[in-house]
Amino acid sequence: MKFEFVLHCSRCGWQRDPEGTPGVCEVCGAPLLVDYPLEQLAEHFRPESVEGRPWTMWRYREVMPLAVDEHPISLGEGGTPLVGIPRLAQRAGVAEVWIKDEGLNPTASFKARGMSAAVTRAAAGGAPGFVAPSAGNAAGALSAYGARAGLPVRVYMPKDTPAPIVAECRALGADVVLINGVITDCGVLARAYARDTGYFDVSTLREPYRVEGKKTMGYEICEQLGWDLPDAIIYPTGGGTGIIGMWKAFAELEALGWLPAGRRPRMHVVQSAGCAPIVRAWRQGTESAEPWTSPETVASGLRVPAALGDFLILRAIAASGGAAVAVADSELLRCADELLHCGIGACPEGGATLAALYQLRAAGHIGPDERVICFNTGAWLKYLE
Amino acid sequence: MKFEFVLHCSRCGWQRDPEGTPGVCEVCGAPLLVDYPLEQLAEHFRPESVEGRPWTMWRYREVMPLAVDEHPISLGEGGTPLVGIPRLAQRAGVAEVWIKDEGLNPTASFKARGMSAAVTRAAAGGAPGFVAPSAGNAAGALSAYGARAGLPVRVYMPKDTPAPIVAECRALGADVVLINGVITDCGVLARAYARDTGYFDVSTLREPYRVEGKKTMGYEICEQLGWDLPDAIIYPTGGGTGIIGMWKAFAELEALGWLPAGRRPRMHVVQSAGCAPIVRAWRQGTESAEPWTSPETVASGLRVPAALGDFLILRAIAASGGAAVAVADSELLRCADELLHCGIGACPEGGATLAALYQLRAAGHIGPDERVICFNTGAWLKYLE
Repeated sequence: MKFEFVLHCSRCGWQRDPEGTPGVCEVCGAPLLVDYPLEQLAEHFRPESVEGRPWTMWRYREVMPLAVDEHPISLGEGGTPLVGIPRLAQRAGVAEVWIKDEGLNPTASFKARGMSAAVTRAAAGGAPGFVAPSAGNAAGALSAYGARAGLPVRVYMPKDTPAPIVAECRALGADVVLINGVITDCGVLARAYARDTGYFDVSTLREPYRVEGKKTMGYEICEQLGWDLPDAIIYPTGGGTGIIGMWKAFAELEALGWLPAGRRPRMHVVQSAGCAPIVRAWRQGTESAEPWTSPETVASGLRVPAALGDFLILRAIAASGGAAVAVADSELLRCADELLHCGIGACPEGGATLAALYQLRAAGHIGPDERVICFNTGAWLKYLE
Repeated sequence: MKFEFVLHCSRCGWQRDPEGTPGVCEVCGAPLLVDYPLEQLAEHFRPESVEGRPWTMWRYREVMPLAVDEHPISLGEGGTPLVGIPRLAQRAGVAEVWIKDEGLNPTASFKARGMSAAVTRAAAGGAPGFVAPSAGNAAGALSAYGARAGLPVRVYMPKDTPAPIVAECRALGADVVLINGVITDCGVLARAYARDTGYFDVSTLREPYRVEGKKTMGYEICEQLGWDLPDAIIYPTGGGTGIIGMWKAFAELEALGWLPAGRRPRMHVVQSAGCAPIVRAWRQGTESAEPWTSPETVASGLRVPAALGDFLILRAIAASGGAAVAVADSELLRCADELLHCGIGACPEGGATLAALYQLRAAGHIGPDERVICFNTGAWLKYLE
């Protein structure tokens, strides 16, 4: 296989090529990220290049982790709607509110993007199967892409994961193990299983490609706004792959010359008050986040007490002039309901972004003339019990 | 409002303009269909016209029921993936199998398309609220688009409608009435409620615009195949709006000069053996279908004993050289499972199309060199109980 990208360590700069099934940095253990020859690409790769292509995240294939002429393992991920809701803009006291509705992905969540990219590369690199810990939606997505690739999947999930998600994984043929613990406990078991079996560990940021899938959310919102940018993004943050990915996307788009330099949106992170390690670290001004003890929230995607990419999330917030806020479960559920009454099938994590918008606006972090994008990361249906 | 289309009766040819909230033909009671000035449009409306537009069904706005400069009531419907699955093509003994995955629409089903179009027109025409009968997914879609429009919705559904769909309608703010009967019983109650309250009746083919939404499935598959056509389409048919709509789309695309004349795909209808009025009529060679007594099937979207557009469905099958087949519930569930093991979140109705493919291939209706599109009309998640 011929690759036109390389990998580098997000902390120490160590480099390697993409052959095989790369995991984390072999020197310092930090996440690896992908580098494309952007200067060279800028000469011929333009917004018009993607116009006639299919409405999936792979339309940006020049900046995606594919070998030359390779077909991705795809279920049509990406190309999700960006829905403007004037009613919410008026209520929040801002110029525009757009909902990026990631619930319209395969397996009804944003996790499809990352898993399509990760499974594509690991399957091509020779993985005999996949394993991952998940607080919810990632397991469904991995099960689907494993099935698509024709390879076995094992997932470890907390016992209190919503029942529809467990049922979904099993229907897709995955081997589901339910754990009396949180996602970090599941992660330990997943890594042990990977060591024992040779299955590839697709845990958040323990391989370099889920970020590449997630970054396409950044490409898409720019394309959907006519290659323009919002003023602020509000994103529900568990492992943080989306924030890290979108921040990378905006840098790439500047390097490609598709966006003007220095106009990137402010990145706002929302977590549940019952599990807010990034919010606490941001308030304390630290460079990384202490693990949260006894995480408790109805938003299973936010029940992530420690993120391997904490320092990258905090960097994106700081560099963009954003903020991190925590919202109560009651408030995020009320706001999910408010989104439902606008016709959006919002999950609790999606509700959290609207709750954060109200809070950020009240605190002056977001101004009255601004264009704001809130992410609904999954479909409401998966949380139905 | 200025309109550049007119309405005509599908049976007697009676015409009217689109002002207000048109229902069925005022002369003979048959469904009304929309006529666009296709010859005139052909002069400037070309495939390139839509390339840079958002990935929703409204990208074809010149042939959609919008007033000049009007914004539709949209949640990002359409733009669903067309996923090629070589594994299934090999099993079925055909050249290509593509799944059009309509479960990735808002409210997780193809019904979103029709409801977006119908609610857009009826809301602009002054409807104070909406009412509809539904065997399932249509109710969820209407609830969402009513919420998006800020107008109240009442839906009548059989008591055995899947629980997630009932819960979805209620979460979206609709007033749900569960009936001890089938969809035709619900229809009687919906029409009475519409008469009493002035609410607009959005029942299948009792207004002209749901067909317009559904026809975009035909436009999309052609665009996704690079403005080419499949050899055969297999579609799970309850009320039949999709078959009628796609057949209309192919005629429009020929008139626009976007597709060569005389190359339309064969339209294959699949129903459940427990409710197969169209299959029976097709076998008997009649022009319309007798209502099915005691319909029974797990595929709630196929539990439609009588379709107002029966004669239009039968005409499309005949004109295209297609066929109508019935499959047992056990078989359609087995095939939904087979799709799930390819990563597709297939509903029972989606499974029915794969079951029909095997049957049509075995009977020689579909040949070994053909390109076949099977429709998965909704997401599996909604049928989880």
